[in-house]
Amino acid sequence: LNRVDTALVVGVGLVGGSLAAAWRKVGYARRVLGFDRNLEAANVAVERGLIDESVTELPAHVDVLVVCTPSDQIAAQIAQCAAHADLIMDVGSVKEPILETLRGQYGGVPENYVPCHPIAGSELSGPTAASADLFDGALVVLTPETESRLSEVAAAAWECVGAQVSSLSAAAHDQMLAVTSHLPHLLASAYMQQVEAPALPFTGGGFKDFTRIAAANPELWWRILSMNKAHVIAAAEEFITHLKAFTDTLEAGDQVAGVQALSEAARLRQQL
Amino acid sequence: LNRVDTALVVGVGLVGGSLAAAWRKVGYARRVLGFDRNLEAANVAVERGLIDESVTELPAHVDVLVVCTPSDQIAAQIAQCAAHADLIMDVGSVKEPILETLRGQYGGVPENYVPCHPIAGSELSGPTAASADLFDGALVVLTPETESRLSEVAAAAWECVGAQVSSLSAAAHDQMLAVTSHLPHLLASAYMQQVEAPALPFTGGGFKDFTRIAAANPELWWRILSMNKAHVIAAAEEFITHLKAFTDTLEAGDQVAGVQALSEAARLRQQL
Repeated sequence: LNRVDTALVVGVGLVGGSLAAAWRKVGYARRVLGFDRNLEAANVAVERGLIDESVTELPAHVDVLVVCTPSDQIAAQIAQCAAHADLIMDVGSVKEPILETLRGQYGGVPENYVPCHPIAGSELSGPTAASADLFDGALVVLTPETESRLSEVAAAAWECVGAQVSSLSAAAHDQMLAVTSHLPHLLASAYMQQVEAPALPFTGGGFKDFTRIAAANPELWWRILSMNKAHVIAAAEEFITHLKAFTDTLEAGDQVAGVQALSEAARLRQQL
Repeated sequence: LNRVDTALVVGVGLVGGSLAAAWRKVGYARRVLGFDRNLEAANVAVERGLIDESVTELPAHVDVLVVCTPSDQIAAQIAQCAAHADLIMDVGSVKEPILETLRGQYGGVPENYVPCHPIAGSELSGPTAASADLFDGALVVLTPETESRLSEVAAAAWECVGAQVSSLSAAAHDQMLAVTSHLPHLLASAYMQQVEAPALPFTGGGFKDFTRIAAANPELWWRILSMNKAHVIAAAEEFITHLKAFTDTLEAGDQVAGVQALSEAARLRQQL
């Protein structure tokens, strides 16, 4: 473990609060500071011991700074904070639009910025839901434009809290996550719009699991889906093609094709 | 608890084996017998203590008989077994086609048949997955054509293992379950057909929950979806309408409408 002196988490909600708590737990930094515009959240983070100290202004210099604000605020925060840290990371669920905004509106991508996306979360949000174990066994995708010593430092900051680290291009990340993460949220939510309240008692464990992600924070998810909308809409259209193919098979009563389609899906799912 | 002398479970897989085990656990019957064409399953049921005894022929008379075979075999089993029991039930996920088959091919619906559907299950199957607690807190839907003393006896047989009982018409049941149970299986499976194996590492807990039901037994689910295909296809078409409305909102960047749609879905899900 390559310890650092000071780490600063900007945005101490579910993800930021969990990372701060995890860093404290493993002793990654001598001090883990937290910054949150929402002072109540900052106070909760202190009370729950997620951070050592809450700050209301950016320190002149920290070793590692991670931006854990909602996705659509990340580019501005990166631009504003980059000069205050040796390494600056984020945890945004969509990567390419952040780089585009930095290039288009903020004069470029800071050299000390390593874009990160930990694939971990919960339908809950805020520092009360934070947990030092959130990243244990999780995958964190790094999307640096060029691999550098800083990407290794960033990787180590995640690995020390139990995460596995993988690298992808920002474009490949956004396209893949549209399918593996954003589309399921869209489908679960569209499905819940079809369910009527009186039907809720007639549901079982399958329904509960299938729809859990539909309970996630609507504002946060609107931002994520919007930022990645080209990939998300393309994924939804591909989904409709698969669904229609299956209902055609059902309509036709084609048992061989139907069982084969269900079996392929089951086999792939069972690999998890 | 109104105990009976002999109960017979036909088909000792996940559901039948669990019901037998639950009945044994609460002492519902002096003897819980099991019948399964698959002798290995019958042996496992005996070894695991799910049933008191395995039988290879129908006894002349039992008090309660429950058919727990795959949905498309239930009508034939009901017709064959009804005369051997005071009360005969089933656990099929689709109700109206069973009644139609009994009327069309077997001379009518036996008077002692109370159609049942316990909304409980697992992506696993077979007697090795059976559990005496499967129905604890579950809802069991009864769809008798007329309420009678027998429906009360049937309700008591489920309530004694911790289930809640509700009555619906067979048609209302099939239409509602198309939305609350069959459609989620269809959607999860169609979704998994879109996911490529190399993407699996880039998935989190949301994905795992959302897709769990896609791992369910393909043959069983093909039969369920086929038997209820008119309602299932209608539900899938309605789903596509909801999904397209949401992607249109996303395309248009209509934040107010988008957050409202996500919020309504989240609120309803949070009621569970």
